[in-house]
Amino acid sequence: MIYMDNAATSWPKPEPVYTAVLNCMRKHGANPGRSGHRMAIEAGNILLYTREMLCQLFSADNPFRMVFTINATESLNLAIKGSIQPGDHIVTTSMEHNSVARPLKELEKRDVAATYVRANSQGEIDPDDIRKAIRINTKLIITTHASNVTGTLIPIREIGRIAREHEILYLVDAAQTAGIIPIDLSSLPVDMMAMSGHKGLLGPQGTGVLYIAPHVKLKQLKEGGTGSQSESLFHPEFLPDRYEAGTLNTPGIAGLGAGINYILREGQNKLLSRITRIEKFFLDALLQIPGIKVYGPARMENRIGVISINVKDFDSAYIAGLLDQKYNIATRGAIHCSPMAHKTIGTLEQGTVRFSPGIFNTLDEAKQCIRALEQLTRL
Amino acid sequence: MIYMDNAATSWPKPEPVYTAVLNCMRKHGANPGRSGHRMAIEAGNILLYTREMLCQLFSADNPFRMVFTINATESLNLAIKGSIQPGDHIVTTSMEHNSVARPLKELEKRDVAATYVRANSQGEIDPDDIRKAIRINTKLIITTHASNVTGTLIPIREIGRIAREHEILYLVDAAQTAGIIPIDLSSLPVDMMAMSGHKGLLGPQGTGVLYIAPHVKLKQLKEGGTGSQSESLFHPEFLPDRYEAGTLNTPGIAGLGAGINYILREGQNKLLSRITRIEKFFLDALLQIPGIKVYGPARMENRIGVISINVKDFDSAYIAGLLDQKYNIATRGAIHCSPMAHKTIGTLEQGTVRFSPGIFNTLDEAKQCIRALEQLTRL
Repeated sequence: MIYMDNAATSWPKPEPVYTAVLNCMRKHGANPGRSGHRMAIEAGNILLYTREMLCQLFSADNPFRMVFTINATESLNLAIKGSIQPGDHIVTTSMEHNSVARPLKELEKRDVAATYVRANSQGEIDPDDIRKAIRINTKLIITTHASNVTGTLIPIREIGRIAREHEILYLVDAAQTAGIIPIDLSSLPVDMMAMSGHKGLLGPQGTGVLYIAPHVKLKQLKEGGTGSQSESLFHPEFLPDRYEAGTLNTPGIAGLGAGINYILREGQNKLLSRITRIEKFFLDALLQIPGIKVYGPARMENRIGVISINVKDFDSAYIAGLLDQKYNIATRGAIHCSPMAHKTIGTLEQGTVRFSPGIFNTLDEAKQCIRALEQLTRL
Repeated sequence: MIYMDNAATSWPKPEPVYTAVLNCMRKHGANPGRSGHRMAIEAGNILLYTREMLCQLFSADNPFRMVFTINATESLNLAIKGSIQPGDHIVTTSMEHNSVARPLKELEKRDVAATYVRANSQGEIDPDDIRKAIRINTKLIITTHASNVTGTLIPIREIGRIAREHEILYLVDAAQTAGIIPIDLSSLPVDMMAMSGHKGLLGPQGTGVLYIAPHVKLKQLKEGGTGSQSESLFHPEFLPDRYEAGTLNTPGIAGLGAGINYILREGQNKLLSRITRIEKFFLDALLQIPGIKVYGPARMENRIGVISINVKDFDSAYIAGLLDQKYNIATRGAIHCSPMAHKTIGTLEQGTVRFSPGIFNTLDEAKQCIRALEQLTRL
């Protein structure tokens, strides 16, 4: 099978990821942070190791500000609901995933207002439009780092500067970029960054991260046992325990640590170039096939990771189904949990067929995809 | 190492659990419920399989009412916060874990009242005391099924009947019993049951379950991508998607399914008898060692899974440390995230040394524990 669905979950994982998950379960299978025996301490060390890997990859200095969640959706819910009160206003974009839009729709029922800054038809956001949307009660700006539908990169440095000027918190949804594009938190004006563990960071499903800058205080989503301040009926206030109630996914986090270590060892730019090479090949080849419509920016510098297309007027789920069944190519069709983005690019009805190459895809696989699409245009 | 910390996390797991986690990552590593290609469908089938295993083990008939969470703490937060409004009253007990107590303390700041029914010094709850605590605005009764400090079993059938009589929801925290004690949801008057996946159910860490009875409607904790109704900006209302926002811990859930399948195949009563045999041996032997104080009910029928003790007046963490370092025995000392329970049994200062045998512990290991304790009483 040619797996071109890495924007949903990266697959396969580097070998050390599988080994780390298994080793964690077999050899360090105790509960981290609860008991004090050696195996429990080893399990605790796994969590710390992965936090340190995250700090290294993203140039952050406090591992305890890397909070583990089950997925980017939880990271976003925590960041949004933890920082917003009734009466507040949020600025966001029309390119957001439902993991941002749906919590906002929920908050809008509770006297929170949101402005959805419209992207152009390539999914590009003008930072000046963000600035214009700011109101006196704006507390939070949320943007994705790259659209999961079009791959369009959003200028987070410029938007972050605008947020800082106005003393507004800036939350970046890096679900599609963390691990893929170098992100330097020591220099970026970003207050919170939500990440998936199972996409570009090469960890297993069931892992997410929220980076929380030192000056940011959030209300927690859940309270419970933390192994810390066990004698207290009140949830601890310090990080990371405040945001990590209950037993964590230690095996998954072990795998995530191994995934990040793999990225650091191989070199992020080298791995990134594998993806951009395939993406460039795809884009160049697709332009030469009549009957194929390509979405997102034409310029490679403005996009990353996904190539969304349609074949003539065929339903995208139908094409994705044929790619799977006839050509053994795994893509995603239909609406990619981001209806606002589809509306922006005009594909709310048709959806798109999304190819999302990963670091293990080859140019030969990309060629097979192109050949399959050529055939499908003759339908 | 002699691992006697199964009440924190069961270890080791049956071999098929490791295999299932690894197979899921290696062979079915796509995103369940998002894309439509074969590997994504296989991943979706893993989730369904585990839901069906849960239904089989607990005699429930609708797999979609078995909702996956990251841990029992999240299950409890969802059940409690999803069902309670300001002005409501909750009845619970003094034997609850902080995963119940801390969410309640949080709600108490928001015009929710709670009554903590006091257990006796063995941790036993009189159902009649629950009845007496009910008020006109009581919306929810919460009890653990077995205390994680004393192992005391709580009469959930009797308490459930009282809840039904008063048309009050009944939430059972089965973190310490699910998978260990047979639980028949088809006959028990239980409306919600929170479970850990990584304890008696033999799954990996990072897995929890909330069973939600058909007549119960909860508000969700999180909104986001679900792979369903992708075109809608509003979070879906149907189960299980309503409560499962974002990508799940599919490898962990694969392991959980394998763990439950192991229980069903081996026979729950056979596995239970392994634990009770060791527990009985422990209790009989401990009674004959002067200087050892044993907590919880004397009668085996009223307890399960944990043997909490103290050696003279020594700090429990000190004894647990010696057991680990000198005897290679893994236990948990100090306060087990349940300060109310420690207060009830009078160990808020000293804590307890908790031995929690699992299905793979042997009588010989139990004997080594007893010999170690005999030596420690001579300190």
